[in-house]
This record gives sequence, C-alpha cells and structure tokens, in this order.
Amino acid sequence: MENFTYLNPTKIVFGKDTVKDIGKNLYKFGSKKVLLLYGKGSIKKNGVYDTVVNSLKEKNIDFVEVSGVKPNPVLTKVHEAIKIAREQEIDGILAVGGGSVIDSAKAIAAGFYYDGDVWDFFEGKAKPYKGLPIFTVLTISATGSEMNSGGVITNEKENKKWAFGSPLVYPKVSIIDPTVQYSLPRNQTINGGIDAMTHVFELYFDKTKNNDIMDEVSEGIIRTVMKHIPVLLKDPKNYESRANLAWSATLALNRINGTGRQGGDWSSHMIEHSLSAFYDVSHGAGLAVIAPAWMKYVYKEDISKWVRFAEKIFNIHDGTDEEKALKGIDKLIEFYKKIGAPTTLKKLNIIEDDLEKIANNAALLCPMGNMKKLEKDDVLNILKIAYE
Amino acid sequence: MENFTYLNPTKIVFGKDTVKDIGKNLYKFGSKKVLLLYGKGSIKKNGVYDTVVNSLKEKNIDFVEVSGVKPNPVLTKVHEAIKIAREQEIDGILAVGGGSVIDSAKAIAAGFYYDGDVWDFFEGKAKPYKGLPIFTVLTISATGSEMNSGGVITNEKENKKWAFGSPLVYPKVSIIDPTVQYSLPRNQTINGGIDAMTHVFELYFDKTKNNDIMDEVSEGIIRTVMKHIPVLLKDPKNYESRANLAWSATLALNRINGTGRQGGDWSSHMIEHSLSAFYDVSHGAGLAVIAPAWMKYVYKEDISKWVRFAEKIFNIHDGTDEEKALKGIDKLIEFYKKIGAPTTLKKLNIIEDDLEKIANNAALLCPMGNMKKLEKDDVLNILKIAYE
Repeated sequence: MENFTYLNPTKIVFGKDTVKDIGKNLYKFGSKKVLLLYGKGSIKKNGVYDTVVNSLKEKNIDFVEVSGVKPNPVLTKVHEAIKIAREQEIDGILAVGGGSVIDSAKAIAAGFYYDGDVWDFFEGKAKPYKGLPIFTVLTISATGSEMNSGGVITNEKENKKWAFGSPLVYPKVSIIDPTVQYSLPRNQTINGGIDAMTHVFELYFDKTKNNDIMDEVSEGIIRTVMKHIPVLLKDPKNYESRANLAWSATLALNRINGTGRQGGDWSSHMIEHSLSAFYDVSHGAGLAVIAPAWMKYVYKEDISKWVRFAEKIFNIHDGTDEEKALKGIDKLIEFYKKIGAPTTLKKLNIIEDDLEKIANNAALLCPMGNMKKLEKDDVLNILKIAYE
Repeated sequence: MENFTYLNPTKIVFGKDTVKDIGKNLYKFGSKKVLLLYGKGSIKKNGVYDTVVNSLKEKNIDFVEVSGVKPNPVLTKVHEAIKIAREQEIDGILAVGGGSVIDSAKAIAAGFYYDGDVWDFFEGKAKPYKGLPIFTVLTISATGSEMNSGGVITNEKENKKWAFGSPLVYPKVSIIDPTVQYSLPRNQTINGGIDAMTHVFELYFDKTKNNDIMDEVSEGIIRTVMKHIPVLLKDPKNYESRANLAWSATLALNRINGTGRQGGDWSSHMIEHSLSAFYDVSHGAGLAVIAPAWMKYVYKEDISKWVRFAEKIFNIHDGTDEEKALKGIDKLIEFYKKIGAPTTLKKLNIIEDDLEKIANNAALLCPMGNMKKLEKDDVLNILKIAYE
C-alpha cells in the first residue's frame, strides 16, 4: 500500500425528495446570488428545475441562469459563463445536471478569479488560487464529479479534451436524489454505469500491490453496478437500484477508492477523450470500447491482477492464469454487449482512417498510464484492437 | 437504502514515516500551544513520543503534557485535563495514542468551552456548542476514533461507560503510521481487529434492506481484517498487513460504511460497555464474547442477512437458511478462538453472579438495538449465552 493523504470536504445529501433542500443548504452557507448552470433542458421536463427554483425563492436566493451546457462540455461555454458570472457579481455556482455541468462549474469557479484564460489550468500553465463555492444537484450518476476535485473540458478549437483538478473546486454540498434519474434515457443509464465502472478499473489496475482493502472496495463497487444496471433497464423506476448505482458511482471516484494506490492508470480515459475530441461520442460509450481494448493490450504487465478480477467479478476459477485473465476481459465485453453498450469503434461509427489522427491527439499526453507507459504507437495499437 | 447526509472533515495522513509530519500540520492550522495527551507511556518506548516532540519543537509549537490516560478511559482524567487546558490556555489538543486517548481528547475539547460538567453531554442533558481543534497520531487501529465524531468515557463513580458525539469533535488531522504498531502487544492487535470487525457488524446487521454497496464494503472490510490479523500474529512487522488492518479499521467507523443504513444496532457495544464498567476488560476482548452471543440471540430477526454473512465471509453454501446462519456465527467464534481471543465470559473471569448486575447497568440504555429492541431480560439472556 502506498502512503497517502485524504480529505474530502464535500457534504452529501442523499436520498428521496432531497432536491428541495438545496435552498436551505445555500442559505446556511450564506449564498445570496448564484449562477444557476444547467444543460439542455431535461431538468425542465422532469421537474427538477421547478423544485430547485422554488427552493431558492423560498430562501430569497437570487440566481442568474446559464443553460445549454453540452455533454462533452466545451470551453467557449465556460468562457461565456465566467463573463456572465463576473458581470452579475454572483457569489457561488449551483450546477444542476451531470458531470458535464458540474465539470463546467468547476472551471467557471476557478476561472472566475483568474485573469488569464482558464484553459491555462488544463495546460498546466497556471494553478487555481481561489474558487467560487460550488453546489450541485446531480441528475445522472456517472462521473463522480459531485464529490471530487476534477473536471474535464473540451477546447473545441484545439480539439483537446483535457482535465484539471484543484482542492478548491470540491463542491461544498451535493444533492443526490436517485428518483430524479427515473426518467433518464436508457443509454444514459448504461453509459453512466460504464463510466463509474471504468473509474474503478483505472484505479484498480494501476500496479499497486497489497492494497487488499481498496481492491475489496473496488470489487464491491463493480459487482454492485453490474447487478443494478440490468435491473434498471427493465425497471427504470426501481428506487433501490437507482440508489445503489448512484452511491456506487460517487464512491468510485471520491478519492476513497484511490487511497493507498499509485494514482491510477487513466490511459483509457485519455484515449477516450481524444476520441470524443473529434467525434461526439458519449464518454461512457467510448469507454465501453476503449477500456477492454486497453486491458487486452496491457494485461500481461500484471497478470495476477486480471486473474483476481476474473475470479472476484466473474467467478472464473478454471484454466491457466493467461486463460483466466483473458476470460475475465471477455466476460466484461459480454456484459457490455448484454446491456446494449457498443463494444467496437466501428459500432460507434468511427472511420478507420481517423485512428491515426486520434492517436496523434492522445500522443500530446504521452507517455501516459501507469500499468504500462504508453507511447503513440501503443495508443494506435489499442485503437486498432478496439476497432472491430 | 435509507436517506442520509455525509460529511467527514478529517484529513488523514497515512503511511510510513508520517508521524514526523504532525508539527507541520499543526503549524499550517495555526496552532501555538497544544495539550499533548497520551497514555501510560508506550509511546516513550517505541519512539513516537520523541518524534512528535521533535516535530513540535521544529515548528516552535509549545505543548503541555497530560499523560496516564487508561484503556477504558475515565471521567476524572477528562476533568483533570480540562482544568489544565484552561489554566494553560492551550489552543488545541494533540492526542497521541489509541481510541482511549482520542476519545478523551474529544471530551476535553468539548468540555473546555462548557461551564457545566462535561458528563452532561453523555447523559444527553446538554450539547457541545464549540470544540477545541483535535489532532491525532494514532498508535493502535481499533476504534476508528481518528476519523469520526464519537467518544466513549467511563464515569467511574457511577459505573457508566457511555458515549457522546458531535460534529465539532471530528479530528482536524489524523496521522496513521502503520509502522508504529509494529511493537504492539499481541493481544492488542487481536482486540483492535475485533473492535473494528464488531463496528462493521453493528452497521451490517441493522435491518436495513437493499444497501448492496455498503454490504459489499462491509464484507470487504471484514475479509481484509480477518486475512491480516493472523499474518500479524506471526509477523508483527509486516507492513502491508499493518497498513491494511489500519485503514480497514478507520473505514469501519468513519461513517462511509454507515451511509444509507438505519444507524446501526450497537447493542453489542452497549452491553460490552456495561461489562467493562465493572470489570477491567479490554473492549475488543469483551466484544469477541458479546457480539457472537448477541448474534445467536437475534439472528432470526433477519435470517437472510446472516445467511448472506455466512456465504460472503465463510463461503458456506450448504444447508437450510437456519443452518447456514448458525454455521456462520460458529465460524466467527472459531476464528476468534484461532487468533487467541476469549470466547466466553467465564474465560474473561467474569463472576456468574454478576450477570444480573451487568444487565441492570445496561438496562439504563434499554430498549437498545435496532435488529431487535432489547429489554433488560434480553440483555441478561445474551449474557447467559455468552457465559460459557
């Protein structure tokens, strides 16, 4: 187990009928006027918008709306929101949505106080020194952004989908009401679950040895997500499954699961980001294709870990280590197929000739990964494995 | 799954060679003069005292010592320390030790600002409204007090071993260096592990339904503790086992594991507290006897949970539900015997005639428990099961 420090200052309010508590929480914090940030309007259909707005009004908290945050959220939107936030002199950000909205909120919160371009944080040219307080009402369980300090934004002019992180952008309060996810489109439930699973994979397969307790926690999260996605595909309003999936997705990336590790691998995420920098692919769908391909390419670096994965997740106990490891990866792909996720780049309508371009884009971050240090050619090989 | 709120503000610094970082952390916090609280001097033998004191001196942080905190820590010591803390105008408490020292620090921290008797908090007659900041250097993994907001103190005049809790007494920073536990006496490693396991039992067996994710986490903690105690009994300086046991014990009771539950049962703890209010029994040893007896008495209240326990922890898959449940409890007792823990009150040298007195003491807190609401006669029955 590796040395670590851990501190997570986010307060979670979890459960049925909790969205209406957002006003109370902002009031406690002393907020007077917030930037209300959301996406393309699904919150107006499912009632979340009305509940939030009423809750703010009850506590006389003023708000300015910025909407239209897209999946794979873009830098121009962040710039626009920072400008409005400054003009309107808001004192906090209320992000109502999923990872895209919350990640955008983080960039806005840190960019608000920074004279240069907020993109500098993503390029590593500057570090946030202050952040607006962030509050969230989560509407899809996937990224874990509601309880961590990272965010991913696409610089659409430069085709860079990159991440930044700072302890300053942990949300102060996040409300997770699983019932608001009853109305999620089927593919968003699937992709959200796969995103959460892949976060666990990034941490679990990172070459750390002897971290039994976090391996146990990781395996517990994976089994729980895999148990409840299929239930939700048949019964989207199953509260217990929504709740188990939601809390699992948060725990997958709230840093507890990363304690005592080497920081994770993150190649699958970086490669997927290059993919969705060019194609408007849902992050979870991209990961369903990339992560297993990455596994096939690197499993020999630590075969015992993939044997453990096969045993603990899929009950595979027969065969050589090699056979068990590969069977575990196959079973994962089989699960993805079963729940209706894409499992090849071809199925995502990626043009084969573009693989080189995607690999070149990823190469900006090479060498990447911890399980195996990947160079551009490795990335290209993984993309080829993923292709069909 | 139940609704919950979760916020844990404790910063954990975990790993090899981290004790020396305590001065730096206090300095960052702005501490000038702390109460240095510890036990009966083991920290002087294993070098922790010197490392802590040097670290304080390096940052010019003044300190006043109060030592002699006993296992099953007592109220008179808390009173003594509050008096000294006030006279010396300290601005924080540095607890160096295990649960007894940290629990005492919590009572001192809250009592420091309270005009009445700090015991009022334990009786529920008053609530802490302010607390001195607490910092800890953990020397034995067991209670989880290093990352939670509760404490247990014995009022020795009234034979009451009771608990209190307040968000104000979460430690600000806790340093967990597994290497300082290399020199622990064998029975303390055993009892610490059993305490951690029993915390998980209290939460796991509390009648909550459909909390798969926390059941998984609970089972992961139990398996990890059960794997590493036997290793440590043969090889007390095995770093990986010390580290896994340490982090598991913290996670067992840092409230994550309690999320989405009904608050836990806690009968085993309350009965054990009555036992050690009269007898100087180590808490973990008492729990090794009481918790399995409690299980035998109440398992029919939720037999499916004990079946799950038998399956997930001991791989028991044959027999009726009743048989599996009972076999699981027997296997737990067998494990306790194997590691050298006492498994009957008789072996703890409890006099049979005292069972009534112990049950009467526990009855002050009746009805107790969530799995089954226990009255005094139930407690007496459990003590009788535990006797031999």
